[in-house]
Amino acid sequence: MTRTIVASASREIIIGFDQPFCVIGERINPTGRKKLAAEMVAGNFETVIKDALEQAAAGATMLDVNAGVTAVDPNATEPELLVQTLQIVQGLVDLPLSIDSSVTAAIEAALKVAKGRPLVNSVTGEEDKLEAILPLCRKYDVPVVAISNDETGISMNPDVRFAVAKKIVERAMDHGIKPEDVVVDPLVMPIGALGDAGRQVFALLRRLREELKVNTTCGLSNVSFGLPHRHGINAAFIPMVIGAGMTSAIMNPCRPQEMEAVRGANVLNGTDKDCTNWIRTYKDYKPGEHAAPAPVQVNAPGDGSAGGGRRRGGREARMARG
Amino acid sequence: MTRTIVASASREIIIGFDQPFCVIGERINPTGRKKLAAEMVAGNFETVIKDALEQAAAGATMLDVNAGVTAVDPNATEPELLVQTLQIVQGLVDLPLSIDSSVTAAIEAALKVAKGRPLVNSVTGEEDKLEAILPLCRKYDVPVVAISNDETGISMNPDVRFAVAKKIVERAMDHGIKPEDVVVDPLVMPIGALGDAGRQVFALLRRLREELKVNTTCGLSNVSFGLPHRHGINAAFIPMVIGAGMTSAIMNPCRPQEMEAVRGANVLNGTDKDCTNWIRTYKDYKPGEHAAPAPVQVNAPGDGSAGGGRRRGGREARMARG
Repeated sequence: MTRTIVASASREIIIGFDQPFCVIGERINPTGRKKLAAEMVAGNFETVIKDALEQAAAGATMLDVNAGVTAVDPNATEPELLVQTLQIVQGLVDLPLSIDSSVTAAIEAALKVAKGRPLVNSVTGEEDKLEAILPLCRKYDVPVVAISNDETGISMNPDVRFAVAKKIVERAMDHGIKPEDVVVDPLVMPIGALGDAGRQVFALLRRLREELKVNTTCGLSNVSFGLPHRHGINAAFIPMVIGAGMTSAIMNPCRPQEMEAVRGANVLNGTDKDCTNWIRTYKDYKPGEHAAPAPVQVNAPGDGSAGGGRRRGGREARMARG
Repeated sequence: MTRTIVASASREIIIGFDQPFCVIGERINPTGRKKLAAEMVAGNFETVIKDALEQAAAGATMLDVNAGVTAVDPNATEPELLVQTLQIVQGLVDLPLSIDSSVTAAIEAALKVAKGRPLVNSVTGEEDKLEAILPLCRKYDVPVVAISNDETGISMNPDVRFAVAKKIVERAMDHGIKPEDVVVDPLVMPIGALGDAGRQVFALLRRLREELKVNTTCGLSNVSFGLPHRHGINAAFIPMVIGAGMTSAIMNPCRPQEMEAVRGANVLNGTDKDCTNWIRTYKDYKPGEHAAPAPVQVNAPGDGSAGGGRRRGGREARMARG
């Protein structure tokens, strides 16, 4: 059974086919958020802090951390800013983090200070990326998101995307990284532009699970780009990808409709044992409302959407939680 | 490609893998509705009329019609009441109907007066049922719902349920009924009682589609029985069963959350071409609300959730709708 282990300072989470869906909170990312970018450049992390706490409270399993403010020279500025952001987030919430950058030096700088076992986001099938990122993942013994595009761009042919994913997994093995530490992003196209985008990704997810036996992820909301009522499309997409074998997604956990879809799919996929999380979350649900997030708790997990979480410290520590 | 054709007086609908999910409205059914049962026995069809119009307006593809009021002798009373109910419904809405009864004489009486091509609901793998219902389906050339239980009851073993379904399809063929006119109900168990119920049915649906090549249906809300916020579980279940190959369900189309899940899954499954129905339904959607149903139209289809619908009358008539 494929198990990708990620960890914060004191909590391990397993990403896997028999685990609750891993929700990687996407909010801490200045891409397309001018105000947040300006704040971060100015050393103001109020929004970062708010986003970290809100996502944890809403039930995120992990948090993605991106400090890609548009800069004249990202190589010069991004490493320091990513380290600063990461340290603030890991000081606030006890969730495993995803180190998200296109700047190799920023990824390495963040890996040096990250607690636990973060996820590197990301490598692609491009030759220079493979040879820059994979040695780092090996050196720091961390898993990596593998995006299935290469020098030729994103293929509209899902067989080509599968082949790129396979190449990355094989190259990772050459570098001594196990396939279970490669989380493949098969790339989700907007359904409004490509009517076959859904069926493509469902078929790809099955192949990635059955043939490559890897965990998978995607930038979830991309599927609904350009359509009205995007949350409705996202909330239908989530159970479908979970049913097809996807094990994580980079998404906004502060959207109640999407999180309800995750929790419902976990119940139906048999990863919310005895429906415990569902019942706890919705036992007092009133028609017409979405479940309110739990009160913000600093240094506490969210709603346990990923039940693989456990305190580090071996069997005794785990037993104590029961 | 498997295509089950059902029809009202003037409209054909195709149930099939490449078609929008077929929503069979479940409301016209006195089972567990004492007030409705009493009304129907007294010859008062106001609720039946209201349920028919509301379900059509909410986007039902077909309507199930059940007149199973608890009676001392259903064989004596149900045929007449079912015929009466069916005639009222088919006079009101131009949707294909599902004739739902456990009384063979009631099914035959309804078949005699039904317009178009109704669906018979249902036959089981029980010997007396098979030999009572299948000859009727052959005689009236109508499709039938095949429920995968037999004399031994409902097996908890999905392989047994598959074997029962296979037996019914084979027996139907012996009677001259094509497999495409058998719509199998694999039987959905409550997930709160059986944690594996979801995965069981997803696996069964794949086998029914790939091995028996039949259309499928289920009583959808059964899956959430006993849990809080059942609509949330139902709304996650719908995209998962559609992704697994289910082509119809007997459900309540007046529940906006469930219908949103159907419409979203149709988009993602590639059966809402150019997202036309989604965009029309949700273009003015405001966050926090569910789409209002379209205004009630007598003798008009709903929101076209099943796009296979077309006027009878051949190519010319169809072109005129464009």
